Amino acid sequence: MTLSTRGLGAALLAGALALVAQAPARAGDEAEVKDFLLDNGMEVVVVPDHRAPIVTHMVWYKIGSADEPPGKSGIAHFFEHLMFKATANHAAGEFDRAVADIGGSNNAFTSYDYTAFHETVTPSALEQMMGFEADRMRNLILTDDVIKTERDVILEERRSRIDSNPQAVLDEEVDATLWQNQPYRIPVIGWMQEMEQLNRTDAKAFYDSYYRPNNAVLVVAGDVDPGAVKAMAERTYGKIARGPDLPPRIRPVEPEQNTKRTVTLTDARVSVPSFSTQWVVPSYHTAKPGEAEALDLLAEILGGDNHSRLYQQLVVKQGIASEAAAFFQGTMLDATNFTVYGSPRGDAKLSDVEAAVDAEIARIAREGVTDDELERAKTRYVRSMIFARDKQDDMANMYGSTLATGGNVKDVQEWPDRIRKVTAGQVKAVAARYLVFDHSTIGYLLPQQQAGN
Amino acid sequence: MTLSTRGLGAALLAGALALVAQAPARAGDEAEVKDFLLDNGMEVVVVPDHRAPIVTHMVWYKIGSADEPPGKSGIAHFFEHLMFKATANHAAGEFDRAVADIGGSNNAFTSYDYTAFHETVTPSALEQMMGFEADRMRNLILTDDVIKTERDVILEERRSRIDSNPQAVLDEEVDATLWQNQPYRIPVIGWMQEMEQLNRTDAKAFYDSYYRPNNAVLVVAGDVDPGAVKAMAERTYGKIARGPDLPPRIRPVEPEQNTKRTVTLTDARVSVPSFSTQWVVPSYHTAKPGEAEALDLLAEILGGDNHSRLYQQLVVKQGIASEAAAFFQGTMLDATNFTVYGSPRGDAKLSDVEAAVDAEIARIAREGVTDDELERAKTRYVRSMIFARDKQDDMANMYGSTLATGGNVKDVQEWPDRIRKVTAGQVKAVAARYLVFDHSTIGYLLPQQQAGN
Repeated sequence: MTLSTRGLGAALLAGALALVAQAPARAGDEAEVKDFLLDNGMEVVVVPDHRAPIVTHMVWYKIGSADEPPGKSGIAHFFEHLMFKATANHAAGEFDRAVADIGGSNNAFTSYDYTAFHETVTPSALEQMMGFEADRMRNLILTDDVIKTERDVILEERRSRIDSNPQAVLDEEVDATLWQNQPYRIPVIGWMQEMEQLNRTDAKAFYDSYYRPNNAVLVVAGDVDPGAVKAMAERTYGKIARGPDLPPRIRPVEPEQNTKRTVTLTDARVSVPSFSTQWVVPSYHTAKPGEAEALDLLAEILGGDNHSRLYQQLVVKQGIASEAAAFFQGTMLDATNFTVYGSPRGDAKLSDVEAAVDAEIARIAREGVTDDELERAKTRYVRSMIFARDKQDDMANMYGSTLATGGNVKDVQEWPDRIRKVTAGQVKAVAARYLVFDHSTIGYLLPQQQAGN
Repeated sequence: MTLSTRGLGAALLAGALALVAQAPARAGDEAEVKDFLLDNGMEVVVVPDHRAPIVTHMVWYKIGSADEPPGKSGIAHFFEHLMFKATANHAAGEFDRAVADIGGSNNAFTSYDYTAFHETVTPSALEQMMGFEADRMRNLILTDDVIKTERDVILEERRSRIDSNPQAVLDEEVDATLWQNQPYRIPVIGWMQEMEQLNRTDAKAFYDSYYRPNNAVLVVAGDVDPGAVKAMAERTYGKIARGPDLPPRIRPVEPEQNTKRTVTLTDARVSVPSFSTQWVVPSYHTAKPGEAEALDLLAEILGGDNHSRLYQQLVVKQGIASEAAAFFQGTMLDATNFTVYGSPRGDAKLSDVEAAVDAEIARIAREGVTDDELERAKTRYVRSMIFARDKQDDMANMYGSTLATGGNVKDVQEWPDRIRKVTAGQVKAVAARYLVFDHSTIGYLLPQQQAGN
């Protein structure tokens, strides 16, 4: 889950991130991408893109909800909100107005592993953006009044986005059931009773620990010259003192799952039932070479789009499902999840849809995929890369999310080649190894009248 | 779950602890119980018992597995083991031999909220025991070699007690599913991958934080004079310097449960299936006045013994269950669990047993209990108190566990009166409020051939 300060941006960016997980740059552009470190430890990546006179400026902090201290859930996302408040040099709202005045856009988002702030503007405004962003990295004014006001905002956000939405309530408890030790079990927005207690002392400690140049990645994608960006970055961010060294991001690890778990929410507001099955699988950062790439292709073949096995079998051929799909969230610092889900159509029962999905999973784990299927899946990836190349913010997101979860520029650039090398045997192997029903976690969302479904 | 250093003692003590949760002292003895503080902050409780020339000496540390730092699961129990190693003044094994030489017994155990060490000896050896116990509170020699050797012991303990036992494996994942935020979700023995990493630095930090007189409760029950015990305690424990003040034991709190969860383990080693249903309920420490007492009586009436509704209905009348019972673990620092469980007999199906148990729960939540049932349950408590009064170590356990989980001597002494005041309406109210099926967590242990049960 990714949360953003403004509602609209949230949906757009969540979509962008899902896409970029499958969408690196074309190899031909690699030579142009420059990355370097400022003297204070801030990482910088510049991705030149001269098709239009715009630039996307992002600062990624390597701090997310999974890094929060016990009992302080929600502080990472809360802090993202606080970053829009007054600093010693600018009144609250001044940065936003500066962006709006030049016809730009800006937003921010928080996920398990990172918090990012971004603006899209004309290149002439880039240094001004850097100035604002550098300023709020260290100069926020955190008063009890600011804390209280913004805490009311996040509490209301939780009520409206989670507590009033049965799917969101279920998702939270499925996550906390799938993850029994690793902190991805804790919702990004936080548990209500802990959010209510967040205070100025917590916020100040969080700010001082994590909002430092040596814990940040600057990504600039657009109509810019890397040398000029470097000079600007040195003039703005470069003036900020390096913070204390942070310990390695070593988090509690998930123990082996030995059981099959279910989580069921029955609610009068639900009209059509649905289910999702999740497994703990390695991420790009934790996987052995080739495994995460194979999981990406497995998700694509099993349930990535309308060509997928699940869609063709359940929606098109059998006609029992309104939707049936799979996804793999590979760009995570720790072990991640592989998910399949489905919902019945017409008179079909949820249990029929679940059985049919399970049958496709069992088949792919038993028989593997065909070379033809695999080639077509790889081709669809290449196409999605071209599409991503056309979207400057997707490019910036891809570099930022990779660098914020333990990867580097080379990982992004070599990723298409690593995908191309995946064999049908590897796809079958990850399906057989990870998609084991007796070690899965299933969420059911049921209408009140189908409680006994 | 309570773990002890020696296997035999573990089973005995776990039994004793389960018992004492329902077994305070007779009111007539209250005046004799003395409690006081040493100058260094160590709490002392003396319970005179002159029927036989023996004394039970216990030191309870207010540190358990639920206090462990993230990623360091098992360190509390590991430390219990390390306390039996060499100190600056005594070789490893010397304390044990001193106890054995005088025909005494000793052991230790670790639970979620506390770690305790105890010896039962003749009164003439009490001061010697205090000397040894005071010595190891601060003078342990923690070398890498000691750590490595004892770590191998706890790893083997985990393999033999948990990993090779399907019920124990299931219980761990049920706990971690019931508790999604509160640290009782983490097994006392620890997660294997974290236990493997425990090291000298972790152990030293743990020792220096928690093994201090101002974090300990001394309980002496037996043929002793409180004044003499006080003098001995001052001569031994009193010499230890007070440690730094510890912060209040405020742990992450469980969010409201909105779903019904199941956890299923299917294993070839299982011959008879069983289930257990758990709910999060308040403990004596977190409950509103009267609620925990009502939960204790609810557990007793519903499934406390052979007179209980579950036993009479399922085992005696219907004959479908080999066992059916309920229990409430009230002596905990944070919210705790209320559990019912059952297993089929003969040709009966597990689902029949579960349905019959659920029917009894629904009935008690809907119709409540009779005054007669309530009176008989209270009488059984009084009887169990008399039984406990006869067992010196149960008395000591009762005071120690209460004081280590936020209670005081008065709480123990007034507890029988508080039980006597519970009304039938209060019992019905807690059943209706807490035993809600849509917000429960059910564990299933199934034989391989009944996977589809």
